[in-house]
Amino acid sequence: MPISKPLMLSTSVDIRVRYAETDAMGVVYHANYLTWFEIARIALLDKAGLSYRELDDQGFLLPVLEANLKYIAPARFDDVVSVTATMNELPRVRIRIDYEIVCAGKVINRGHTLHAFMDRQARAIKPPPVVTERLAAAFAQWERTNLGE
Amino acid sequence: MPISKPLMLSTSVDIRVRYAETDAMGVVYHANYLTWFEIARIALLDKAGLSYRELDDQGFLLPVLEANLKYIAPARFDDVVSVTATMNELPRVRIRIDYEIVCAGKVINRGHTLHAFMDRQARAIKPPPVVTERLAAAFAQWERTNLGE
Amino acid sequence: MPISKPLMLSTSVDIRVRYAETDAMGVVYHANYLTWFEIARIALLDKAGLSYRELDDQGFLLPVLEANLKYIAPARFDDVVSVTATMNELPRVRIRIDYEIVCAGKVINRGHTLHAFMDRQARAIKPPPVVTERLAAAFAQWERTNLGE
Amino acid sequence: MPISKPLMLSTSVDIRVRYAETDAMGVVYHANYLTWFEIARIALLDKAGLSYRELDDQGFLLPVLEANLKYIAPARFDDVVSVTATMNELPRVRIRIDYEIVCAGKVINRGHTLHAFMDRQARAIKPPPVVTERLAAAFAQWERTNLGE
Repeated sequence: MPISKPLMLSTSVDIRVRYAETDAMGVVYHANYLTWFEIARIALLDKAGLSYRELDDQGFLLPVLEANLKYIAPARFDDVVSVTATMNELPRVRIRIDYEIVCAGKVINRGHTLHAFMDRQARAIKPPPVVTERLAAAFAQWERTNLGE
Repeated sequence: MPISKPLMLSTSVDIRVRYAETDAMGVVYHANYLTWFEIARIALLDKAGLSYRELDDQGFLLPVLEANLKYIAPARFDDVVSVTATMNELPRVRIRIDYEIVCAGKVINRGHTLHAFMDRQARAIKPPPVVTERLAAAFAQWERTNLGE
Repeated sequence: MPISKPLMLSTSVDIRVRYAETDAMGVVYHANYLTWFEIARIALLDKAGLSYRELDDQGFLLPVLEANLKYIAPARFDDVVSVTATMNELPRVRIRIDYEIVCAGKVINRGHTLHAFMDRQARAIKPPPVVTERLAAAFAQWERTNLGE
Repeated sequence: MPISKPLMLSTSVDIRVRYAETDAMGVVYHANYLTWFEIARIALLDKAGLSYRELDDQGFLLPVLEANLKYIAPARFDDVVSVTATMNELPRVRIRIDYEIVCAGKVINRGHTLHAFMDRQARAIKPPPVVTERLAAAFAQWERTNLGE
């Protein structure tokens, strides 16, 4: 039944592992997964018509408040990983994004990040109207596509 | 009563923020906190007489299984942050380490990581005897110093 | 006159600037250009039918002996830069690769790196036959295409 | 004869190699040497009474115009390297700094960088008076100490 299905806005990006991202264990250094999460997060905002760069230029920053990662399997140099970022609920003040990284058909990492908007003086602010409007529109679009009869 | 007090092995390292660690927000890029956690984790093992490099050379790897971070306040270029790593329980198979980062007398980040030993073939293995022995000795030493009458 | 034209093997890759690659100046941190050079260098070897990963797996390492960079203009978060790597001469023992980075139609960086093959024991070795053969074939192909009557 | 001896302002910093700085070759990733150069460069300015952070806060940026590196031998995780930055001539518009990295008594890297001052609008500017004055004073002090009879 549709209603039980969570609302969601989701997108995936493919990333080819750089040599610079490996460490002496011969696998991707664990901190780089946060960078990959961010790349997918920015693609997710793009998909909703929100340019992270424009927000940044307008002084709307979206710092990370929390990050959680589960490392399931390693990735190696030259692997192509698919990073999926998903927003499962329309954000109010805080924005939660979930991530899944797949390599060679296998989930190798899962995590989520929590964010809040901030101005250049590092003061917490409400999401700018353009953000709430575009995200609401993107979710409505998703509903029409997936839940509409 | 001492028994209620957790066992613990703890150490702190001071890190001066590098320009390379900042981002366009003018603060430390969030992924770098995982690198700082690792620096303190390695210092913690050193304190217990365990050289991460020797373990690595012997083929005992200690990959990260989980990482959790709470970003409380930013750090800036040239700040000196103090990163404390603490082991609150004698590890069996999995090793949990807690972290706290202080800058200018203020806690700016808290987190923890979960680890398990692995061999060069990426197979999970039990902690090598040298690790369990030295950690047990370090904890016993801590008890004598802090809980003994 | 063709003969005066240098032999060359060349390829370009587009890279979208990551937030992680910026620094507190608001532009790409200067060390990251070496990482971009490497991405283009690996694409250049791919083009010649040489998988850097396979070479690496076979124990043939291609460390950097020298690197030179001229920073002409900055790149910013979310810019798409085109990095071109060129081999102007068929390598004997040492391999020289030249780079040019273009952003918004403007050259923002030029540089070159010098390499030599090394085995896993860090001993200098001659380029493996597969490398010399494939590069010779790629250059011959280029000659036929560009210098042939 | 003193006059033939170059003027120089020099300082060294010890850096313990981080696991994050290694790559799948098991050695320090080549781009990180530029970060180490910067750490020594900032220490050199500190020694002359110039806080890079204050200059940055005042809108005086010192971007890299050129970088040259010669990789002589690798460094490994947990090695302690000593990075020496030297200014051999009192800078006019451009500032050249030379670097030498020593590990276990052996020079493993040599390089230099070229810089010019820039304002926040990315316009080239002359070195701020405080810079020229403090560097002149530091060089004079060096002369008195090393060349004076």
